[in-house]
Amino acid sequence: MPNIPCARLQPRAALTLVLLSTLGALACRTASPGQGVRMAVPSTGAEAVERIAREALTRGQTYDALAELCAVAPSRLSGSEGAARAVEWSAERMRTLGFDEVRLEPCTVPVWRRGLTEELVVTAPADLAGTRLPILALGGSVATPPAGVEASLVIVQDLEELARRTEEVAGAIVLTARPMDASLLDPFEAYGGAVDQRSQGAAAAAREGAVAHLVRSMTSSRDDVPHTGGMRYADGVERIPSAALSTNAADLLAARVAAGDEVRLRLTLDCETLPPAPSFNVVGELRGRELPEEIVLVSGHLDAWDVGQGAHDCGGGCMQAVETVRLLLALDLRPRRTIRVVLYMNEENGTAGARAYAAAHADELGRHVLAIESDRGVFTPRGFQADAAPGAVAALRPLVDLVGASTGATALTTGFAGVDIGPLKPGGVPLVGYVPDPQRYFDLHHSANDTMDAVHRREIELGSAAIAALAFLVAEAEDVLPRTPRD
Amino acid sequence: MPNIPCARLQPRAALTLVLLSTLGALACRTASPGQGVRMAVPSTGAEAVERIAREALTRGQTYDALAELCAVAPSRLSGSEGAARAVEWSAERMRTLGFDEVRLEPCTVPVWRRGLTEELVVTAPADLAGTRLPILALGGSVATPPAGVEASLVIVQDLEELARRTEEVAGAIVLTARPMDASLLDPFEAYGGAVDQRSQGAAAAAREGAVAHLVRSMTSSRDDVPHTGGMRYADGVERIPSAALSTNAADLLAARVAAGDEVRLRLTLDCETLPPAPSFNVVGELRGRELPEEIVLVSGHLDAWDVGQGAHDCGGGCMQAVETVRLLLALDLRPRRTIRVVLYMNEENGTAGARAYAAAHADELGRHVLAIESDRGVFTPRGFQADAAPGAVAALRPLVDLVGASTGATALTTGFAGVDIGPLKPGGVPLVGYVPDPQRYFDLHHSANDTMDAVHRREIELGSAAIAALAFLVAEAEDVLPRTPRD
Repeated sequence: MPNIPCARLQPRAALTLVLLSTLGALACRTASPGQGVRMAVPSTGAEAVERIAREALTRGQTYDALAELCAVAPSRLSGSEGAARAVEWSAERMRTLGFDEVRLEPCTVPVWRRGLTEELVVTAPADLAGTRLPILALGGSVATPPAGVEASLVIVQDLEELARRTEEVAGAIVLTARPMDASLLDPFEAYGGAVDQRSQGAAAAAREGAVAHLVRSMTSSRDDVPHTGGMRYADGVERIPSAALSTNAADLLAARVAAGDEVRLRLTLDCETLPPAPSFNVVGELRGRELPEEIVLVSGHLDAWDVGQGAHDCGGGCMQAVETVRLLLALDLRPRRTIRVVLYMNEENGTAGARAYAAAHADELGRHVLAIESDRGVFTPRGFQADAAPGAVAALRPLVDLVGASTGATALTTGFAGVDIGPLKPGGVPLVGYVPDPQRYFDLHHSANDTMDAVHRREIELGSAAIAALAFLVAEAEDVLPRTPRD
Repeated sequence: MPNIPCARLQPRAALTLVLLSTLGALACRTASPGQGVRMAVPSTGAEAVERIAREALTRGQTYDALAELCAVAPSRLSGSEGAARAVEWSAERMRTLGFDEVRLEPCTVPVWRRGLTEELVVTAPADLAGTRLPILALGGSVATPPAGVEASLVIVQDLEELARRTEEVAGAIVLTARPMDASLLDPFEAYGGAVDQRSQGAAAAAREGAVAHLVRSMTSSRDDVPHTGGMRYADGVERIPSAALSTNAADLLAARVAAGDEVRLRLTLDCETLPPAPSFNVVGELRGRELPEEIVLVSGHLDAWDVGQGAHDCGGGCMQAVETVRLLLALDLRPRRTIRVVLYMNEENGTAGARAYAAAHADELGRHVLAIESDRGVFTPRGFQADAAPGAVAALRPLVDLVGASTGATALTTGFAGVDIGPLKPGGVPLVGYVPDPQRYFDLHHSANDTMDAVHRREIELGSAAIAALAFLVAEAEDVLPRTPRD
């Protein structure tokens, strides 16, 4: 194979090259236009990937580690006792596994507590009066007065509709009720198209004079389980209480409103926001044997919503990141560069950990050759999504082909890679998100359904293998991926 | 795009062609060397595939239909009352949906009944005496005497070991205990490497004088659920009773034997084989608008083991085949050729339906342009596996790319396509198996776990869309796929 910089090839020839590389040549060298560096699949890569997959499938510890994390600290919202336990437990696990270095890196996190009272009661029409509907306060919501807030219900499909219906909305409880678009193949895309109702619904409703806000849960399923999540108030707009309602309950209310009934509800929440508190990212390393100052970062986020166990979101991703180093240690595959595992704090309601990491490591971002995050659940592997320069994506293709053949993680798409690694992008770091199958994820996301019961041993271990294999190939490669240019 | 017969291209050029075709050209024309016919993606194909996927995801009926089948006839072993109810219910569903023709095509099936008594009791060592272990008789097994058969346990890892240990095996109960190889990415491959113990274990053990046979269940998981399945006796060899033992129970016994204990067991089964009985394949058609005599066959098998509900194996595949026609009817997408849905009888223990269909339709196999089977579960789509001439596989590639973009069924591999469509291969029919993700399948295969609870609505509907889209594209195409040459 000639030593051709892929990024300078014509598309057709480049694609042929990529395709041929998948057939065993595996020697696509990709130029970083700015630096002239090139990248090749390491000669030991194919055997290493096979060994990693075999170890993961036969002796993988991701599933058991996650079960332990979920038992030790099922509720891990930033600033909680559970989050602190998760930090300690994770650091201790890395030490026990023989990481070369383990440290806690400080960050300051917002602290919100759900409280003990969450109640939504129908007060009219008469035949439904007294019915309690399943809700969860959204993270960041203010409380109601102790006796609750009682008002008529107004249902809207999008935030724009609020402004058109100002007179009705004033003094009402508003339900933003647009479902995730089921016709989209990727539920993450559907989530992206609906989640403004959760994050901005309270502010938008309050702007028109609403007294409380409810959101139809962000989920692909119709059931009785509410799904919480973050929300933001707007400066200069009253802070009204905001909660997620189960999809079945939202649809019940919508049917009554559509039938012409005046529906009245009483919402009672005693959640509260406390002063910010100190917390930590957990960082552990397998030091590179030749270029220890160059870093492949592998990550998830350790905080989780306070319902369920955060098994998929994102305890599983964290345990896959930790397993990356365990697999390499078990197989004596110490790569040329350092593998750094970062378990971020506070992804769910503030990204304090992500920002603190980027700030604390600003001087060495130029030596972060790749950052991987697993934060889309731990279902069966589909592949990876890259947020990187085109040349980096092309260079990753033969690596992903190799990884996919042993793990099923065959896809390589471009787009959003991960919340926590996002702040590394301005430093030029190529970003990759691990992509498992997405179809079941929003059945459980941010809800009581997100427990070990929804995790499959082979699926999570295969994900660990995929992440570990990709991290190893990049950490072992002779050269590095092209950097991400500044926008 | 030049009109190049793919099958005659050099590999490198052919691959380039395939790759380019995935980029939107979608006009790969593939020669059938023997016939000179060509095949192109229909011009309306891209829009049709998108509409099919959207209809399936928003108004698909596969999941609800399967729930009804599993309620009406959860136990559907050939010759049973449940199988008869499933035949009637399926035919009625096709009629209600507006199929152009629905008919029952006769076959004669073996009849085996589980009976009421299935018991495996430990009689030694003393500390385990009286422990009942979870078993299921294998389909086709003879009964034990009413008082059971009691003997020492001998554990072997493979059938060859039986012949080496003749003296111990004579008079013993033999447990064939080799696990499915967990290190393999594809559990179907692991199943293929272990299932000889189930299908031939009793015959092999009896040949060495064993009095009964147990098999460690064919499953990827370690749990307390036995997995049944078919088995065969050998001519001239005594017929001894044979049952599947849960993996946990098998491992428990293996640990005691490894520790030096003499383990004795008493097995009691009252299953029986009755005379063969009449049954049916259920066949329904959406008649082609231009070439009604040319057929794209879409299939699953209606019979299922008598435990669980046969939700994944293979009620789900049957309902996906039926949904293929419902989707096309709902979207007014009547293709040029006929879509024929065949719900085969007796896949699990005899393939009488598959053989009867091939025999009854021998004269028209030359007009079967494609046969698709869904019999690998109904989990999230991965793609298709073709058992067809190389030219046919190359011609399918752009079609699968189109289907995959809307459904996730992106992979196209070559290999085994399906048990029931297998007898069509000698007639030259290209065969395609639908391939969902395989990681969870053997957790439930042939067991009490195979229920609606393990089926996910979006996953099964996406599978229907993938099958319907591929069937439509081939049924609508100007030309046909190359035929399969005789070996």
